[in-house]
Amino acid sequence: MTLTPQNGRIGVVGAYSTKYEARSQKETHEMIREAVEGALKSVEKGISPQEIDLIIVSNYSDSFGGLLHTAPLVASYIGNLNATGFRVENACAAGTTAVYLAHKLLSAGFFKNALIVGFEKMSTVGTSAKSNEILMRTSAPEEYKVGAPFLSLYALIAREYMNRYGAKEEDLALVAVKNHENATRNPLAQFQKKITVEDVLKSPYISPPLKLFDASPLSDGAVALLMSSEPKKYTDTPVYISGIAMKHDYSGVYQRKDMSAIEAARQAAQEAYKMSGYGPEKIDLFEVHDAFTIAEIILYEMLGLAQRGEGYKLIRDGVTAFTGSKPVNPSGGLKAKGHPIGATGVGMVAEVYWQLRGEAGARQVKDAERGLVENHGGTGATSVVIVFER
Amino acid sequence: MTLTPQNGRIGVVGAYSTKYEARSQKETHEMIREAVEGALKSVEKGISPQEIDLIIVSNYSDSFGGLLHTAPLVASYIGNLNATGFRVENACAAGTTAVYLAHKLLSAGFFKNALIVGFEKMSTVGTSAKSNEILMRTSAPEEYKVGAPFLSLYALIAREYMNRYGAKEEDLALVAVKNHENATRNPLAQFQKKITVEDVLKSPYISPPLKLFDASPLSDGAVALLMSSEPKKYTDTPVYISGIAMKHDYSGVYQRKDMSAIEAARQAAQEAYKMSGYGPEKIDLFEVHDAFTIAEIILYEMLGLAQRGEGYKLIRDGVTAFTGSKPVNPSGGLKAKGHPIGATGVGMVAEVYWQLRGEAGARQVKDAERGLVENHGGTGATSVVIVFER
Repeated sequence: MTLTPQNGRIGVVGAYSTKYEARSQKETHEMIREAVEGALKSVEKGISPQEIDLIIVSNYSDSFGGLLHTAPLVASYIGNLNATGFRVENACAAGTTAVYLAHKLLSAGFFKNALIVGFEKMSTVGTSAKSNEILMRTSAPEEYKVGAPFLSLYALIAREYMNRYGAKEEDLALVAVKNHENATRNPLAQFQKKITVEDVLKSPYISPPLKLFDASPLSDGAVALLMSSEPKKYTDTPVYISGIAMKHDYSGVYQRKDMSAIEAARQAAQEAYKMSGYGPEKIDLFEVHDAFTIAEIILYEMLGLAQRGEGYKLIRDGVTAFTGSKPVNPSGGLKAKGHPIGATGVGMVAEVYWQLRGEAGARQVKDAERGLVENHGGTGATSVVIVFER
Repeated sequence: MTLTPQNGRIGVVGAYSTKYEARSQKETHEMIREAVEGALKSVEKGISPQEIDLIIVSNYSDSFGGLLHTAPLVASYIGNLNATGFRVENACAAGTTAVYLAHKLLSAGFFKNALIVGFEKMSTVGTSAKSNEILMRTSAPEEYKVGAPFLSLYALIAREYMNRYGAKEEDLALVAVKNHENATRNPLAQFQKKITVEDVLKSPYISPPLKLFDASPLSDGAVALLMSSEPKKYTDTPVYISGIAMKHDYSGVYQRKDMSAIEAARQAAQEAYKMSGYGPEKIDLFEVHDAFTIAEIILYEMLGLAQRGEGYKLIRDGVTAFTGSKPVNPSGGLKAKGHPIGATGVGMVAEVYWQLRGEAGARQVKDAERGLVENHGGTGATSVVIVFER
């Protein structure tokens, strides 16, 4: 159903992100604390911890960080045990699931101010084999059983898309090149190094047609947001949620009608656009879930930036470059900013918040008034789309 | 804040539980599927999967069962991808956190019918050392660091309570004896064997004053519930939620004002009683979180069944026995029915549902009209209290 806010618009009024890193020197709880304290301090007119009545934590796996029952931990850190709290998980869409729920619970008037905390410390798992097993827990049981991790499933999706529409491995490489270049302007990004199409094409296949440089990395990171149903109380320039939707598809890629689409994202975008009253033509920047390069190209189509089967032409033509007419992932995206799973969606929202407030520094998209976040779980069995305006 | 339902009362209209076992022969996803299909079939007037618009899954750790992103998996199983879904975690209170959120989201009118699924397959972790490490992730980081698992923290709580109020190890043993006896009447219970006070006192210390028989077991189990804002559409005898609250305390036991209390449960009970309009004197049965025997005794006091410091007298006097005036844990409780963490709170609600409908078989509490669930996370940093009436 479409949500009609009952108590005015919900706004983001504060945000903080740790740098995303391959291996944070901080312990998981220290990363959480840094993000929470940073978000509180970022609120211009100030917010007392006692004004926060809702805490939602986002974390993918407790094996990545070694913490459970983190909502009361956050409540303990801010010294307000009267807030109501819990953790949510929806694979890689955990972060925006938290924002989605906060939006519903604030809109209904149950709570006034929500603290959202996303984190993942993937480096706590020693080996990539073990990390891969934890990532595979998101696959449908039938896919898990045949040993298909994310990357193999995304490879299936890529192969199907490329066969059908004529996209080339070079097109996928262009996404990686663009997002790495964008990340050089983002001090929070894990990678700070430009790469070339040749670098991508020469990187080893991890599951053909996908290569190492088509994939986002394992990351450590924590992000916190403050959302309010009375945003003007906390800042003169809140960033409002004007549309939000969560949609699902079959867990198994093999079960889906069209393996080369991310149907949940298409549906979520349609609903979020309808709720906001405008479409992609009015939106100035997009932060989307490029866990693998192929996902960003398909998302151009799902979000209505390109016709079906023509998404790869946008990256060829530079439309989605930082200097293009529709910048996608000016932050560097999951690909180059990093992908600390539970933090990822929260971090995308933080990025749009800073962009719409003109606080994005070297990566600032000029005159950005509206922004969109698309964050999905696994290969797209959950997608959350949020439209923001200042 | 106290919730005022906007669309009439929310009712439970269906429930199913697998048997709780030390080691289920089914795989995790098969256990989930059994619970979901059983709950759907249990709805007297029938419910179509297409009528379910909200799915909330409860699971403690993805290491116990090996599955993540389970809401779209459940949506795939029921063949309704239009439902909105996510997983919640609040340590051992995950199950009632799911019920709490469903109650809020249904009350606000965002959704009409919720499917709640709780599961845990603890036997997927091979060793008790590894299981213990996963359980410790709920402890505050400072407590984790000194290697304090649940049982040591509960031992601290027990020692403090016994020193202060004069309860004896025999009193704790009486809780285990009662709950084991109750479980013999429950075909879903993991243990089906009566034990004596002597059995408990002779069992080995795991963390003095607590012995092996003071502790709930590791369990496999899955439970599903259907909740509706139009309950009469699905059954003539729904069980209504008349009061519900979630409260928190400091993550660390060492940080709490009174280590011998479970303060979050006291506050949650007060709020739930206030919302329902009546107190413990009007309630016919109680399912409470006896992860360790000491917890049940302290909860007698937190829930207002006994004065502070006098809870242990209730177990001595048989007040909370199956045949007593205030039966507590007629199901056998976590102690003897079992404790598959993510399923536990959902299973407590299922038990009260069956009791208030007169469907509890040999363990039926006569003329039960009102029931209460108290489910807490860890050593009580989260507590959810729900009051039900038929």
